Amino acid sequence: MKKHNFSAGPSILPDSVIKQAAAAVLNFDNMDLSLVEVSHRSPQFDAVIKKAQKLVLELAGLEGKGYEVLFLGGGASLQFLMTAYNLLPENGKAGFLDTGTWSKKAIKEADIMGNAVVLASSKDKGYNYIPKNFDIPNDLAYVHVTSNNTIFGTQIKDFPNTSIPLVADMSSDIFSKVLDFSKFDLIYAGAQKNIGASGTTLVIVKKEILDKTGRTIPSMMNYQTHISKDSLFHTPSVFSIYVSMLYMQWVKDLGGVAAMEKINDAKADLLYGEIDNNPNFVGFAAKEDRSPMNVTFTLVDESKKEHFEKLAQEAGIHAFKGHRSVGGYRASIYNAMPIESVQALVNVMKAL
Amino acid sequence: MKKHNFSAGPSILPDSVIKQAAAAVLNFDNMDLSLVEVSHRSPQFDAVIKKAQKLVLELAGLEGKGYEVLFLGGGASLQFLMTAYNLLPENGKAGFLDTGTWSKKAIKEADIMGNAVVLASSKDKGYNYIPKNFDIPNDLAYVHVTSNNTIFGTQIKDFPNTSIPLVADMSSDIFSKVLDFSKFDLIYAGAQKNIGASGTTLVIVKKEILDKTGRTIPSMMNYQTHISKDSLFHTPSVFSIYVSMLYMQWVKDLGGVAAMEKINDAKADLLYGEIDNNPNFVGFAAKEDRSPMNVTFTLVDESKKEHFEKLAQEAGIHAFKGHRSVGGYRASIYNAMPIESVQALVNVMKAL
Repeated sequence: MKKHNFSAGPSILPDSVIKQAAAAVLNFDNMDLSLVEVSHRSPQFDAVIKKAQKLVLELAGLEGKGYEVLFLGGGASLQFLMTAYNLLPENGKAGFLDTGTWSKKAIKEADIMGNAVVLASSKDKGYNYIPKNFDIPNDLAYVHVTSNNTIFGTQIKDFPNTSIPLVADMSSDIFSKVLDFSKFDLIYAGAQKNIGASGTTLVIVKKEILDKTGRTIPSMMNYQTHISKDSLFHTPSVFSIYVSMLYMQWVKDLGGVAAMEKINDAKADLLYGEIDNNPNFVGFAAKEDRSPMNVTFTLVDESKKEHFEKLAQEAGIHAFKGHRSVGGYRASIYNAMPIESVQALVNVMKAL
Repeated sequence: MKKHNFSAGPSILPDSVIKQAAAAVLNFDNMDLSLVEVSHRSPQFDAVIKKAQKLVLELAGLEGKGYEVLFLGGGASLQFLMTAYNLLPENGKAGFLDTGTWSKKAIKEADIMGNAVVLASSKDKGYNYIPKNFDIPNDLAYVHVTSNNTIFGTQIKDFPNTSIPLVADMSSDIFSKVLDFSKFDLIYAGAQKNIGASGTTLVIVKKEILDKTGRTIPSMMNYQTHISKDSLFHTPSVFSIYVSMLYMQWVKDLGGVAAMEKINDAKADLLYGEIDNNPNFVGFAAKEDRSPMNVTFTLVDESKKEHFEKLAQEAGIHAFKGHRSVGGYRASIYNAMPIESVQALVNVMKAL
């Protein structure tokens, strides 16, 4: 039976990407060697990372605009620290929009390195909405936002307009919809949700914002180290970067981010439509802030839980339980998720 | 034609590991899902990481001795910084044995975090030997050594006896020979040479040496963070950990580290024997410090270079050029390298 994979991360990949990745593990680029046993400095892998970097700039529409593209280890969790190391002076302040678990983690690390100021928070309502109309003081080194909140199922639709450097954690919605990426000075995204495999994190950074803190930055924490070596300062996760390159090529072949957005909107409309029309379910997130990537909902009548989950299991629905901090259900319907799988879930909801 | 893969890293993997890894990319643990699209918190992956941790303690003979096993991102390069963050007080001193490029990088990062003291160096002879009989002052927070020098082809045969915590970067020779691992308080090793795939770094740490610096350590830099979450504080490189688990199982199935050592010694004897007996070649490293993992040598007569490299290419010898800082040739003959491939190289050397 076909599995419908709603995992929040690591997440579903396009079938063609999985097949190409498995083939490269056996024989990479006709080298008669596995992708996993080839030097990261070989011409063959150099072509992979260069292609991945080019695809990022193409998909983001950022070619020739002063941005550098890196693939680093350590996930978004390390970026919480690296952004502060690179952008926050020792006694400086950074402003944060607190929209949930991942924002809080970013705030915690920045506050170790300097002062993290919470500009606005949706904690008062259990993070079920995105705060709007908040002030941005002029004395901030940067403003940090989490574009999509995987756990709560909310997404920022309008980003702050500010002349202060804008940093975004886009781990769970990068390249899922058209955006003016040039509004941002630094974007990072763990690859394992929307663009690839766990083990690599995409960083897109405008070079002109670096080197302004006066800090001595350890080599691995310094974006300039990685920029100067084209993401090969140390041996990266070769397999993860290869899978991400394949995934982004798949997005490009579909028609790029605009085409991806149409597909994602159709999936989200289908699932949110069912939540709104089916009296058995209620959505968690405020309607205007709903995420098209992570759809959070609960049963109105908890006594139907066992039956609903049994139906879902019989239909091949995989990993759609809500995060322990929210409960209920979370259907992660990232880029690679086909609408047929969303329909399979909707069919189960209708059958309840 | 079969390739003989002498790559210094990422490096050769056992054939059976490559086949199992490729199969898991298509269908992991009969889940009808790819290894790459399954949650790192799934019971199936939890079993993988637990098995990998157990294999490490078994192979090292460290079960029940107070050690924790972690699989982290960022390579040995990040460990240069993390060891200092976790073990070096702000005004403290750490002692280093300087045996080449990787030692120097470790020294540089520790010196940013505190004071790095060079106890002894082989820089005077281009790092072709291991310094011996050096003093270890009593006021050091830890002593750091690089057990095997990939670039220069030297290996420490006798580790310092000291009551000060001993830290070793074993990236290029871990589990290649029998060692009293309990002499060490912290061991780290990028997986991509002797035990797995790039994207994960093995850390074995004696828990009692932690929490003694008085520092506030950022979450991702703190070994305690990763210990408390069993290496799953953030999404790790799932594929890389899986491959490392398979590789260590392969070592165990062969008979463990003692059996591995016999095979590695036979390979090293064969190749060093040829270097010593063939008038066309000369070894780079001092004989008593020769590495059984990375065999460095040069041609006596440079005019034979083109012919030698043509013969090697025709025989399927892959990636045996020396590092740019040493020149000549470097045959990396890590755990997974079969003696048949070493014989193929020796045959080419004989044919010159």
